[in-house]
Amino acid sequence: MKSQEKLHGRIEASFNKQPFLTLIGAELDHVENGKVIISCKHKETLTQQQGWLHDGVVTSLADVSCGYAALTTMPVDSEVLTVEFKINLIRPANTNKIIATGQVIKSGKMLVISESTVTDESGETVIAKMLATMIVSHIKR
Amino acid sequence: MKSQEKLHGRIEASFNKQPFLTLIGAELDHVENGKVIISCKHKETLTQQQGWLHDGVVTSLADVSCGYAALTTMPVDSEVLTVEFKINLIRPANTNKIIATGQVIKSGKMLVISESTVTDESGETVIAKMLATMIVSHIKR
Amino acid sequence: MKSQEKLHGRIEASFNKQPFLTLIGAELDHVENGKVIISCKHKETLTQQQGWLHDGVVTSLADVSCGYAALTTMPVDSEVLTVEFKINLIRPANTNKIIATGQVIKSGKMLVISESTVTDESGETVIAKMLATMIVSHIKR
Amino acid sequence: MKSQEKLHGRIEASFNKQPFLTLIGAELDHVENGKVIISCKHKETLTQQQGWLHDGVVTSLADVSCGYAALTTMPVDSEVLTVEFKINLIRPANTNKIIATGQVIKSGKMLVISESTVTDESGETVIAKMLATMIVSHIKR
Repeated sequence: MKSQEKLHGRIEASFNKQPFLTLIGAELDHVENGKVIISCKHKETLTQQQGWLHDGVVTSLADVSCGYAALTTMPVDSEVLTVEFKINLIRPANTNKIIATGQVIKSGKMLVISESTVTDESGETVIAKMLATMIVSHIKR
Repeated sequence: MKSQEKLHGRIEASFNKQPFLTLIGAELDHVENGKVIISCKHKETLTQQQGWLHDGVVTSLADVSCGYAALTTMPVDSEVLTVEFKINLIRPANTNKIIATGQVIKSGKMLVISESTVTDESGETVIAKMLATMIVSHIKR
Repeated sequence: MKSQEKLHGRIEASFNKQPFLTLIGAELDHVENGKVIISCKHKETLTQQQGWLHDGVVTSLADVSCGYAALTTMPVDSEVLTVEFKINLIRPANTNKIIATGQVIKSGKMLVISESTVTDESGETVIAKMLATMIVSHIKR
Repeated sequence: MKSQEKLHGRIEASFNKQPFLTLIGAELDHVENGKVIISCKHKETLTQQQGWLHDGVVTSLADVSCGYAALTTMPVDSEVLTVEFKINLIRPANTNKIIATGQVIKSGKMLVISESTVTDESGETVIAKMLATMIVSHIKR
């Protein structure tokens, strides 16, 4: 329990240092070892021409959920960088809220492979699916 | 020349309807058949924890450049949707401006394959590389 | 039950027409709606320089499992073509047998999104993970 | 000139140790710093149901060309492993020969990003395009 709270605090501290996440209104909903859930509410400023949430918002959320899921499996003095990801945008983000669940597939010393599923507010309808590679880097500052 | 201007106008009209592109300050720099260049200036609201432009911003720009490059090769009454893309984030976006050049590799009746190279403001240093699949859809409204 | 056998027969008929699958010794282990399992035994001719199964073999198996999983969800007179896929090669294929389980994430009229997990012979250790886009085409011959 | 021959010899030595490349009849056509060209002739055993070269063969060739292009930029005592790749299969490999040209986009200390273009025998028609991440490993045997 206590270590769970610690883990949440560690991810939250990093999360809150990212101005872009504040800009889009991303929220950190859940943190456990190897799994992180992030959500984002519909706002007009985040939309594309049809009024749906922009692919860029969906992708950002998925990427961040993969990255923080990876970070939960890394040593405390680590930072995570995205090497690459692939995303299938499966359905339009025509919803009040998107929820990105990032999960670690394999955590290595240098590389972590994560996947993320983005759903609508019901948690049932899949909007996007990501498969990503993250790299561990050590905090120097 | 005239048709070039027309093409630019067509892409610009769609571009201006995307509130998220306004939010991040994306600018449409160049349009030709099969190629579109988009840029975005560094702003603190667009950064991650190290002060660099967020992966989500870099990716959004690359995706949009791939999509509009695809749209230039489609019939006038078309719209483009991203099926999927893969991006390698090669260097940190530690720069005053990022420039995404989207180019069509193959334009089919239903699917268009595009790639995008994102560079720093010099246009020389590659920050990211994307390979994407777009689908043609017909405007119904 | 009967329709399950029919589905298996339909996939098997297509499977047996692919000489490359015979060459590598791929076997069709299981077919159900939206899910196909294919395996391949270690043979020296299929290896790379360290004696492990070649990435090309692992990838072929994953691709074929995604494609046939997609085909199970399509009308009878359809054929499936791979638009693209992304694969993470997570661990070396240092095993007597690889097993690829392809599953459909979303089946649309034109496109089907599938994923595949390749494991070693135990079925537990993940060797590779694929995320793929397939396109429906209609048999004309 | 001399170092060019040396580089070719080094890649060739590794190439010849891969039984799977012998099985499909892959040939090493060209090696230079950051660029490797590999080809493969049409044989019935390498085909899918329509008689075209199998996606698995096209992909294997592209992967190997990315890997060896990466290896040319690494220290002599290195080996290269594929972390992941994404491939768009753009046109059917309905040709007598496929040619894969792998090129390095960015060579880092740990990771190398490569891309490959697979064409038909004319060298003009693009059959597939790959974007890949390779990791450097040190030979221990």
